[in-house]
Amino acid sequence: MTDPSNHELTSDTLRPLPFDPAKVPGFSEKLLRSHWENNYGGSVKALAAVKKRLTQALGDKDLPPYIYNDLKREHLIRTGSVVLHELYFENLAGSGKAGVRERETIAAAFGSFDAWETEFRRIGAGLGGGSGWVVLGFNLHSRQLENYWMADHATAPANTRPLLVMDMYEHSYQMDFGAAAAKYIDVFFQNIQWEKVAERLEA
Amino acid sequence: MTDPSNHELTSDTLRPLPFDPAKVPGFSEKLLRSHWENNYGGSVKALAAVKKRLTQALGDKDLPPYIYNDLKREHLIRTGSVVLHELYFENLAGSGKAGVRERETIAAAFGSFDAWETEFRRIGAGLGGGSGWVVLGFNLHSRQLENYWMADHATAPANTRPLLVMDMYEHSYQMDFGAAAAKYIDVFFQNIQWEKVAERLEA
Amino acid sequence: MTDPSNHELTSDTLRPLPFDPAKVPGFSEKLLRSHWENNYGGSVKALAAVKKRLTQALGDKDLPPYIYNDLKREHLIRTGSVVLHELYFENLAGSGKAGVRERETIAAAFGSFDAWETEFRRIGAGLGGGSGWVVLGFNLHSRQLENYWMADHATAPANTRPLLVMDMYEHSYQMDFGAAAAKYIDVFFQNIQWEKVAERLEA
Amino acid sequence: MTDPSNHELTSDTLRPLPFDPAKVPGFSEKLLRSHWENNYGGSVKALAAVKKRLTQALGDKDLPPYIYNDLKREHLIRTGSVVLHELYFENLAGSGKAGVRERETIAAAFGSFDAWETEFRRIGAGLGGGSGWVVLGFNLHSRQLENYWMADHATAPANTRPLLVMDMYEHSYQMDFGAAAAKYIDVFFQNIQWEKVAERLEA
Repeated sequence: MTDPSNHELTSDTLRPLPFDPAKVPGFSEKLLRSHWENNYGGSVKALAAVKKRLTQALGDKDLPPYIYNDLKREHLIRTGSVVLHELYFENLAGSGKAGVRERETIAAAFGSFDAWETEFRRIGAGLGGGSGWVVLGFNLHSRQLENYWMADHATAPANTRPLLVMDMYEHSYQMDFGAAAAKYIDVFFQNIQWEKVAERLEA
Repeated sequence: MTDPSNHELTSDTLRPLPFDPAKVPGFSEKLLRSHWENNYGGSVKALAAVKKRLTQALGDKDLPPYIYNDLKREHLIRTGSVVLHELYFENLAGSGKAGVRERETIAAAFGSFDAWETEFRRIGAGLGGGSGWVVLGFNLHSRQLENYWMADHATAPANTRPLLVMDMYEHSYQMDFGAAAAKYIDVFFQNIQWEKVAERLEA
Repeated sequence: MTDPSNHELTSDTLRPLPFDPAKVPGFSEKLLRSHWENNYGGSVKALAAVKKRLTQALGDKDLPPYIYNDLKREHLIRTGSVVLHELYFENLAGSGKAGVRERETIAAAFGSFDAWETEFRRIGAGLGGGSGWVVLGFNLHSRQLENYWMADHATAPANTRPLLVMDMYEHSYQMDFGAAAAKYIDVFFQNIQWEKVAERLEA
Repeated sequence: MTDPSNHELTSDTLRPLPFDPAKVPGFSEKLLRSHWENNYGGSVKALAAVKKRLTQALGDKDLPPYIYNDLKREHLIRTGSVVLHELYFENLAGSGKAGVRERETIAAAFGSFDAWETEFRRIGAGLGGGSGWVVLGFNLHSRQLENYWMADHATAPANTRPLLVMDMYEHSYQMDFGAAAAKYIDVFFQNIQWEKVAERLEA
């Protein structure tokens, strides 16, 4: 563990999009900018605000602990939203073509690369019309690669490093695709930044 | 990432308790055995059963994806329960005395060791009478140490390695302490295995 | 209680929209049709499918009860989605003008009609970018009118009759308003069918 | 709707147990008193405290709406806890023998009384080791009797009147039965106050 005092998430500065939102085939620039500015950006600002309130609240000895936890729940949700959105934008705007090594690693864990993709897409399809995330994660406890269903920003597999994340909140697709979540999933797959997944696999 | 094909969690074998449950001051052997066998053990068996059903379900092309996700949700909950329980039992049955290095690392992140302990205990108190976990975690994304509130086994901070976990499900204390969650938290703190926390800090 | 055997929700027939979706000022016909057909209609069909599976599952004595409950959870979510969507469309496409009696009843419960509206809108604003419902409900247990925050279709106040419901899932507004949830809330208020709320107050 | 201004739930006074907790076969007086005083009573007091904070918060125009909703969520959870606990204690401490009319009404809705009981018990068994409620409810929208799975106090079927409720939080049984949720369910069934269920059916 390198530097625990490096508290990036206390700032309300947004990480810039790691790609030109006008040049991601299948997505409108408007949707990608709105997603980044309003949904990701909204959570960055909310997280900074919640952290200030937590500091005040911790000093208030008369505050019932369940009210304190209402803030800690918001803290967890917003932390999840910030982290997952940053990972999402990072693994977007690529060629959609997995390298040999990623394909082999995934195939070894899931039986075949196709089996992995089938499950990952199916979890996404099942979240259509609702909210949540699909994550290919490396479970640090069991040392295994698995796909996970997540209902919202606060739902996550314990002790797991996400390698590929797909946002299934409706703000990820409604503006361009309406209710057609399946089309969004196709477009997402065509734009996966597999080099970033490879990098996370090495980490 | 070492060995993604090492799927420990597919087995329905329980990891033995890493201590003698008759010798943890403040807890009855009966409670600790029941917690390990029924609650942890129940999830180990449920997880193995759910994984079998998922394999069948993946091959069933007529299954609506939202029904598939009902199983993936159970998969996530049970994975969380198994992982968190194993971490919990590992960080129990110690001296309750944090070493200098852990104290300093925690103090650096939270202002003081006391500030950390106050928040960790408060989150626990707020979960009394309900269910959930309190986790001191190292967020791999923001590189910071934080305490997190978790509502159930499927709630977790994204991309975070747990260093110290405290179970707040009522099965952790009702048998010995009734509704007195605060007493349980005291006893938990007296028995923290800080050497294990130190080890996780180094990982 | 009149007729418990009248199981409307077992059918997969959609209730028609109680208004012409081309004539609701501020909403596009496209959004309203998509909301009705895909989101409401999707849940009607899912609920019928889940009920069939529950009947099969109830006869399977080897099925672990927690797997049975995965289906019961889906049953609860889809029931909520169907019921709340039907109530939502019913209380839409009106003049937006509350009658004297409704205003007085609401004012009596909340201090003033404005106080009620302020809270109702604020809950909606807080749900922007996520999912859930806002409900003005009559709590049958406490005999009081209250506004309630609901995180998803399965979240609801126990023993409460909804009088006015506002959908805050992003499919209610993203297509027309993007991330501007506040504009959607304005348009929703301009189109409340208060006669329906009055009718529910009398029931 | 009779009297919307009758706000019972603003008080922090507990409704007395409607039976002598020393005389419910199979339950210890200690468990029933603790359940009533700590879990039900805790929520009554928390609800009163949350309502005070909501009144203050509503006047604070600088408060972000998502922070306001953190309190509204607590409001919903505590309202559910108070309502459901009052209903639970009311339908406890009876003979366990359903009258002819209740049996017939339930049989008409579920195929047979046994089919109903099998499902109700199974939902309970599936909640063992976790938290939640099982409810036989009359859905006011679909006019049908159904059993519902509920994950916590804030999970509930929309627009539904509970007729029989069974608490599956571990504080309902751990003190007397340990992890043996099935034994608790047996004892609960032996003590159902069916006259109260009959009364709710007539309402």
